[in-house]
Amino acid sequence: MITETKILKLNEKIVLQSGAELENVQIAYETYGKLNKNKDNAILLLHALTGDAHAAGYHKGDKKPGWWDDMVGKGKAFDTDKYFIICSNMLGGCSGTTGPNSINPKTGVEYGLSFPIFTIEDVVKVQKKLIDYFGIKKLCTAGGSMGGMQALEWAISYPEMVNRAIVIASTSRLSAQSIAFNAVGRNAILSDANFNNGNYYHAQKPEKGLAIARMIGHITYLCEEAMHEKFARRFQDNDSPHFTFDIDFEVESYLAHQGQAFVDRFDANSYLYITKAVDYFDLAKKFGSLENAFKNVLAKFLVISFTSDWLFPSEQSKELCRALMKNKKDVSYCEIQSPCGHDAFLLEFETQTKIIKSFLNDCGGNNG
Amino acid sequence: MITETKILKLNEKIVLQSGAELENVQIAYETYGKLNKNKDNAILLLHALTGDAHAAGYHKGDKKPGWWDDMVGKGKAFDTDKYFIICSNMLGGCSGTTGPNSINPKTGVEYGLSFPIFTIEDVVKVQKKLIDYFGIKKLCTAGGSMGGMQALEWAISYPEMVNRAIVIASTSRLSAQSIAFNAVGRNAILSDANFNNGNYYHAQKPEKGLAIARMIGHITYLCEEAMHEKFARRFQDNDSPHFTFDIDFEVESYLAHQGQAFVDRFDANSYLYITKAVDYFDLAKKFGSLENAFKNVLAKFLVISFTSDWLFPSEQSKELCRALMKNKKDVSYCEIQSPCGHDAFLLEFETQTKIIKSFLNDCGGNNG
Repeated sequence: MITETKILKLNEKIVLQSGAELENVQIAYETYGKLNKNKDNAILLLHALTGDAHAAGYHKGDKKPGWWDDMVGKGKAFDTDKYFIICSNMLGGCSGTTGPNSINPKTGVEYGLSFPIFTIEDVVKVQKKLIDYFGIKKLCTAGGSMGGMQALEWAISYPEMVNRAIVIASTSRLSAQSIAFNAVGRNAILSDANFNNGNYYHAQKPEKGLAIARMIGHITYLCEEAMHEKFARRFQDNDSPHFTFDIDFEVESYLAHQGQAFVDRFDANSYLYITKAVDYFDLAKKFGSLENAFKNVLAKFLVISFTSDWLFPSEQSKELCRALMKNKKDVSYCEIQSPCGHDAFLLEFETQTKIIKSFLNDCGGNNG
Repeated sequence: MITETKILKLNEKIVLQSGAELENVQIAYETYGKLNKNKDNAILLLHALTGDAHAAGYHKGDKKPGWWDDMVGKGKAFDTDKYFIICSNMLGGCSGTTGPNSINPKTGVEYGLSFPIFTIEDVVKVQKKLIDYFGIKKLCTAGGSMGGMQALEWAISYPEMVNRAIVIASTSRLSAQSIAFNAVGRNAILSDANFNNGNYYHAQKPEKGLAIARMIGHITYLCEEAMHEKFARRFQDNDSPHFTFDIDFEVESYLAHQGQAFVDRFDANSYLYITKAVDYFDLAKKFGSLENAFKNVLAKFLVISFTSDWLFPSEQSKELCRALMKNKKDVSYCEIQSPCGHDAFLLEFETQTKIIKSFLNDCGGNNG
């Protein structure tokens, strides 16, 4: 499947939760499958921290497919024969949707740190413009990790629109420990000598800081068992130490590679803003209690967690389910046995496919 | 108890495991209690990653006592009425013992990164010189975290000398995950614009990188529950977000404070070297198996772990015990219920005191 990212330019001003306003917002998005006549077969996929609109298929010339290609396509969990799948880059991202690396129409230069701080609610508000553009009134939302937060926020912000919400490896709010990891990652970026208060777009970029932030992230995406399985304590060369500060262990090499690959594709400012939005997300705080947050939702929920995910542990998913059940909402929960840690939502596609297919089955989606 | 740090200057050359040699090594140490006539009441305390020789009492004018003051003194776990307690700053440290911030006698300037990479075995080798200086032939070794690694190494390197070894919240080798955390911390230091290949002693220091390394460390020293207990998701000011990249959450403020306090007292180069020594420590690799590592030890062992320690989890302590038992060695194990994470060895002094007192009781130590 060859896919391409398109751009929707919004004419209206977006007012954010902080009160700040954004003009000339554009949304980068992809679609897979066809929107049916009734416009009732749409599924909006919501990407995680560093994802983008390219969820599935191959861009021309690319060797790697989109981030959820295992899950999206003919006969897959999100079946393009049945559903019209939409995925957009989030507000504040760096892959086509307006973010800190976009040109501020008022100044003619990149926003950098003058970009307003936004929330998950704001991110969803912008996605809603894309859904309105398609004339879609009912949809299913689905996402893992931060994508799951957006799936929840959609069901709460636009209850009449969301008939299904799939929330994978996610949470209604970060733990103090997860905030701490994000804070240290941001600190690494802000401390980089090239950061220059966010104005680095025409100079050396804060690559070292961004790489460190990514390395910290990767430790939290894998679990200890997965790391042991992958690397154990093996040395990179000849299974013996270098007695230098060069890369010694395989796990160091893996992290260095992940860090470097990331700086080539991601903007440090976006990392700051997006992790902040994630830190701020707190449904219980916003609504007085988590139970209260779900009072008006109309969607059926599918909540999935993974046994070895210590970043967003199963207990946080169970908490979501309990709050939904207290409101007598329709919720299915599945804890998948997996050694892959938080990353499991990107890897354990076989089990997820079965569960998601069965959940979507009575949606009656078709392309007719 | 007013204490002071003394210096022992060694005349002999130290040959390290890597083959490198060090001359004019000096050892900073403190002692508490009195060495008895038979010189058989000594306990060597071994500090953790960023500790020093100042384990107990107050330095003149100080408001804070040594790092294990709750455990060392009259009637305490390490009872100064009975035992002669010794604690020295480790090789490569930055609090008096020769390390990268010491003057290289051959060049007249600080070693910096020309300091040789050393191992836990080397650290213990240097400590042995101090014990020899006192004329002590038999001793008890005790330490938490990296201190526990040294206690183990002592019992293995000098089996005829160690009659008791107390190994707290420790391990025979780091997991891949712990190596990863150390690697990212080192990366933050090496990436700091002020690092200057380790030659920063007469210029701006790599404080930002060192602070980031410390923050990462602190996340691993506390457990999620402890962090939740301490900070939950409380905001620093007025319980509301700033909508800026300033410190927002209490947990961010805590980490920033820990980072800043650390750079005021610790040398970034020492951090690099010491974490490397910890990464390299691997008894099973060195001896073919962990069981084999303990073949010749003569000490009685006390192994303590804490339920919420996820850096050096109880399973790693149990692994130590199993290997000792396979060798029919005398080992007592206690897993202490604690919400304090890895930090528990510095905090849970009441339970530790009971256990350690009982373990030491038949040592027959006295000051007579």
